[in-house]
Amino acid sequence: MALRIGVVGAGQMGRYHIERLAGSVPDAEVVAVSDVYVEGARQVADAVGARAYSDGHELVADDRVEAVLIASPGPTHEEFTLACLAADKPVLCEKPLAPTIDACLRVLEAEAAKPRRLIQVGFMRRYDDGFRALKSATDAGRVGRPLLLHCRHRNADVPPGFTSDMMITDSVVHDIDVTRWLLGQEIVAATVFKARPSSLAPEGLQDPQMVMMETSDGVLVDVESFVTCKFGYDIRYELVGETGTLALGEHAGVQVRAEGGHHGPIPADYRERFGAAYQNELQEWVAGVLKGEVTGPSAWDGYATTAVAEAAVASQTKGDRVAVELVDRPALYG
Amino acid sequence: MALRIGVVGAGQMGRYHIERLAGSVPDAEVVAVSDVYVEGARQVADAVGARAYSDGHELVADDRVEAVLIASPGPTHEEFTLACLAADKPVLCEKPLAPTIDACLRVLEAEAAKPRRLIQVGFMRRYDDGFRALKSATDAGRVGRPLLLHCRHRNADVPPGFTSDMMITDSVVHDIDVTRWLLGQEIVAATVFKARPSSLAPEGLQDPQMVMMETSDGVLVDVESFVTCKFGYDIRYELVGETGTLALGEHAGVQVRAEGGHHGPIPADYRERFGAAYQNELQEWVAGVLKGEVTGPSAWDGYATTAVAEAAVASQTKGDRVAVELVDRPALYG
Amino acid sequence: MALRIGVVGAGQMGRYHIERLAGSVPDAEVVAVSDVYVEGARQVADAVGARAYSDGHELVADDRVEAVLIASPGPTHEEFTLACLAADKPVLCEKPLAPTIDACLRVLEAEAAKPRRLIQVGFMRRYDDGFRALKSATDAGRVGRPLLLHCRHRNADVPPGFTSDMMITDSVVHDIDVTRWLLGQEIVAATVFKARPSSLAPEGLQDPQMVMMETSDGVLVDVESFVTCKFGYDIRYELVGETGTLALGEHAGVQVRAEGGHHGPIPADYRERFGAAYQNELQEWVAGVLKGEVTGPSAWDGYATTAVAEAAVASQTKGDRVAVELVDRPALYG
Amino acid sequence: MALRIGVVGAGQMGRYHIERLAGSVPDAEVVAVSDVYVEGARQVADAVGARAYSDGHELVADDRVEAVLIASPGPTHEEFTLACLAADKPVLCEKPLAPTIDACLRVLEAEAAKPRRLIQVGFMRRYDDGFRALKSATDAGRVGRPLLLHCRHRNADVPPGFTSDMMITDSVVHDIDVTRWLLGQEIVAATVFKARPSSLAPEGLQDPQMVMMETSDGVLVDVESFVTCKFGYDIRYELVGETGTLALGEHAGVQVRAEGGHHGPIPADYRERFGAAYQNELQEWVAGVLKGEVTGPSAWDGYATTAVAEAAVASQTKGDRVAVELVDRPALYG
Repeated sequence: MALRIGVVGAGQMGRYHIERLAGSVPDAEVVAVSDVYVEGARQVADAVGARAYSDGHELVADDRVEAVLIASPGPTHEEFTLACLAADKPVLCEKPLAPTIDACLRVLEAEAAKPRRLIQVGFMRRYDDGFRALKSATDAGRVGRPLLLHCRHRNADVPPGFTSDMMITDSVVHDIDVTRWLLGQEIVAATVFKARPSSLAPEGLQDPQMVMMETSDGVLVDVESFVTCKFGYDIRYELVGETGTLALGEHAGVQVRAEGGHHGPIPADYRERFGAAYQNELQEWVAGVLKGEVTGPSAWDGYATTAVAEAAVASQTKGDRVAVELVDRPALYG
Repeated sequence: MALRIGVVGAGQMGRYHIERLAGSVPDAEVVAVSDVYVEGARQVADAVGARAYSDGHELVADDRVEAVLIASPGPTHEEFTLACLAADKPVLCEKPLAPTIDACLRVLEAEAAKPRRLIQVGFMRRYDDGFRALKSATDAGRVGRPLLLHCRHRNADVPPGFTSDMMITDSVVHDIDVTRWLLGQEIVAATVFKARPSSLAPEGLQDPQMVMMETSDGVLVDVESFVTCKFGYDIRYELVGETGTLALGEHAGVQVRAEGGHHGPIPADYRERFGAAYQNELQEWVAGVLKGEVTGPSAWDGYATTAVAEAAVASQTKGDRVAVELVDRPALYG
Repeated sequence: MALRIGVVGAGQMGRYHIERLAGSVPDAEVVAVSDVYVEGARQVADAVGARAYSDGHELVADDRVEAVLIASPGPTHEEFTLACLAADKPVLCEKPLAPTIDACLRVLEAEAAKPRRLIQVGFMRRYDDGFRALKSATDAGRVGRPLLLHCRHRNADVPPGFTSDMMITDSVVHDIDVTRWLLGQEIVAATVFKARPSSLAPEGLQDPQMVMMETSDGVLVDVESFVTCKFGYDIRYELVGETGTLALGEHAGVQVRAEGGHHGPIPADYRERFGAAYQNELQEWVAGVLKGEVTGPSAWDGYATTAVAEAAVASQTKGDRVAVELVDRPALYG
Repeated sequence: MALRIGVVGAGQMGRYHIERLAGSVPDAEVVAVSDVYVEGARQVADAVGARAYSDGHELVADDRVEAVLIASPGPTHEEFTLACLAADKPVLCEKPLAPTIDACLRVLEAEAAKPRRLIQVGFMRRYDDGFRALKSATDAGRVGRPLLLHCRHRNADVPPGFTSDMMITDSVVHDIDVTRWLLGQEIVAATVFKARPSSLAPEGLQDPQMVMMETSDGVLVDVESFVTCKFGYDIRYELVGETGTLALGEHAGVQVRAEGGHHGPIPADYRERFGAAYQNELQEWVAGVLKGEVTGPSAWDGYATTAVAEAAVASQTKGDRVAVELVDRPALYG
């Protein structure tokens, strides 16, 4: 029996998920698609034999829809996750859970009152083979207690309108989530350092930045955020423990010896780098929901990530260390 | 609509495919399983809600079965593929197509008389991302016309009863298939060189061997076949072209710096190395059959591979170059 | 004609240089060795046919001595370099030029009054093939204007008595010098972040630390200083420019495939890592002096490095960004 | 006391050695240079303050000359080494010892009658850090008993007049020597395989070739000889033992991330790749001779290498396996 899924948002990310759910995720069926631009929704919906809605709330209310994937713009995430909670429907919400701490807290409280989790937040890196192997080796104590974590987050380029704070809220949020998950620790402070911007970055964009974070257990985390690096989509991690270090390997691919050198590929974009992770994410979410379980990144993860991002954005402006304050963790989140 | 598949053979390979078809291949359903050891078939069949047969011919004849996967011992492949041809059912036959040239020719002739292909042979490397990237780069002329191909085929160990000729017929056959596919050329001769055997190989096993092959276009191919290398399952390729070389990259995985060195992983076995390739193979085969197409490695590929393997086995004994003679290629195979 | 050299200090570093000067540096002769522990000096001096002194000033005054290498403890560097300046003898002074800014300034002023440079400071990394290739590629604009520099400075272990501020003044000083030389920019501020110390570090040692530095042109530099990393002597650099990154390669050495992985070596200590750099340093210093030239790291470099190190040590205590103030650069230093 | 050296041959290789002996080898002095083109000899000799001769025999006879380096064309090596033996002067003879087996044997016999070795043959790879580390790891049993050896010998290009047999006698001879030295075994047979030649190779040049060799202990050695590979000077080795493999690492150098990939350098020519090896070779030869010792590759090595090369050239023509027959090893060679 396939899981009948409704997708809110038929933009780039929504379509990316719909195509995968319809084409290569076992036991998944897309039965409804909504978008404020209803023509867009209809076009996508027709291709997979689903209903189209202009209003996401109607989609959530549709009886055929058993589970919901939210891929609409961030500011709308709160209302749709709350609607899913009210309808008792499992929901996979693209990051961020919500763009502000207050909105996150409202969702968190609503879910915390439930007997079990319904919300998963779309931090797909946790489903990447490389990151998973990194976590396994860390947890297995391969290099002892973690001390430092070096993160490189490089995009070849950004779309028009991308701003300096989005470098944190859209990009570094992934590193915030990975840090918390990989170390099993909360982040307690962030300090942002700004380099003289690249002359190849759009006017006004503070690119690159170095974000220094500190965890509850005293691990130092530095994130290079560089969104116009030009040469590729380059995600690199090195965790330093008491007896060694663990790093993500290079992206697999053909190794070329030519023209005076040896050469290996770097992915062009997040689809090439994380396509398999998105596949795993959807596959495991569907399989879990069919068994009555929601186990991925939680609303608490969504809230904590937004809280750290907000602190980093504040540090960006102030140029100083900003502490992160979290509410008490509701019992639902263990 | 899922494709209803019958699987002949419930041994290790059969179970490996059944688990995947039932669990993670979209639009696939296993409806029947056969094995001469019917208890084994029943056990597997029950787990996925399929019928069990002791006779593969009954399975092929079952009206519910739309397509067949053959994973029984090599000597039985001929009769079951012929049965599938007679029943006009698409069939994915594990390698070899058949263990002898004559048996291969009988299958080939039977299919060649058909209006369209029904048989695919299970050379899964063609579905591996690494090998595919190698072929794309080769075809794109990244290093010019191919001149040489260096292949390393290393197994950590072999099961009891593994013999020196099986190093060719069970192991090097994959390299024979890859060579033909990657270069788009037939192999015209083989010469086997025997090293003094490893003291860690079972008594009587001629391990390792070097197989030199020559293609119709003058490419030299050397294959290291080493089936008790102890350290892992290590498949490496380097193609030398007129302006450079192309090689498979290392297996991805966590990179460790510890104890005086930096370290990366090598797969333990074919499942770790080629699990994703088997997934792609089944997924594409199912999707193709549902569209009425069979496009993977053909019966011709199965025949030619067996012919080259037979020449190499002859060279193993004679210690000399043995030429490969192929029949004319039937029109069906383009 | 060989250059007649006197070496002040017959400790570990002094002996290391004497052995090289006597054994493998062309056109070099060690004619005098001094040490407050005169028996040590005598032992070393006898082995190479040199005179022994207990007082370095007598060595500097010895007419046979044409040039001086200072490898005595840091606090004595000032008096001996001043003596060399007074005697108009070229001097290669091990780092630091002097341990305090004031002492450095006294040396700087004394030399700045001379018509030409006599002092070279022993920052040997500038003579390492890897660092030189990094600088060539940077200067050639291979990746555009530098934006960030990531430095890893890891020692397997430290001798007893090694303190948290020595992690800056003994270890990070090399990274400070490399940064200034590689980028051709002064460092204007330092901020030190302290991780929870490794449980394998000696009691009281703040290990590891992350040092963030900013240059006059807005390049951000982060240095991981980790002196009890256990696994080896691991120096790694990545410079991020506007169009790509440049990094030091791994240390050459045998690549092993065994026991489930592939493995490469990491040097055990600075001798293995920088032996060839020390060789180049001495060889080029001797060749230069014989031609009447002193061109390596200058007293200005020694002074600026000590000034940055002092700021970093202050930040270590205060936990805040500390600005670096430099005097005007004397004309002698271009 | 410097060793007074005479150099026979002022061509490319002679000048390369003279520059090094005069400039960077401790305790070496070039006192005489000879060349049939005496103007060339004079030009080089003047630059280093040496005498010039047109006749190498006069140079050998010169009383000032204590040791001789022969870098004249291969066919003249016999007469000059014999002259050195007659004059009891140590000699470093560039490879080959002599181009024919018979000539080698005449030299071998002459030296074998002496009480101690005087001849070293210029196989410089034995002085390369990478090859030395490979040998240390092999001898230490890091991967057990050797079974196979894979060698890649690639030149970017060849000078006009380079012929197919020179691919063996000028190029593969290095691999023959390395094989014998690395394994401590003689080579007993060679079989040459010819690919369809590269269209970028000069008309008539059989490029590339694969040379299969067998050793006395049953190790199989395959050498790719490719002298117009275009992309660089690429020397790669992998030794396969019973429990793992050992390989030369990549040439060190700056690692670049740019334009969609990561990139490392390959040397352009033998000078870049083996410059340090030549330096070690000369340095150790001079130091040894000053102590009255000659320990490098011997006349026996020179003879055996020529014998194997001759077999390979014969196989090139015949297209078959050719056995190598060696005379008994004189007692002088242990």
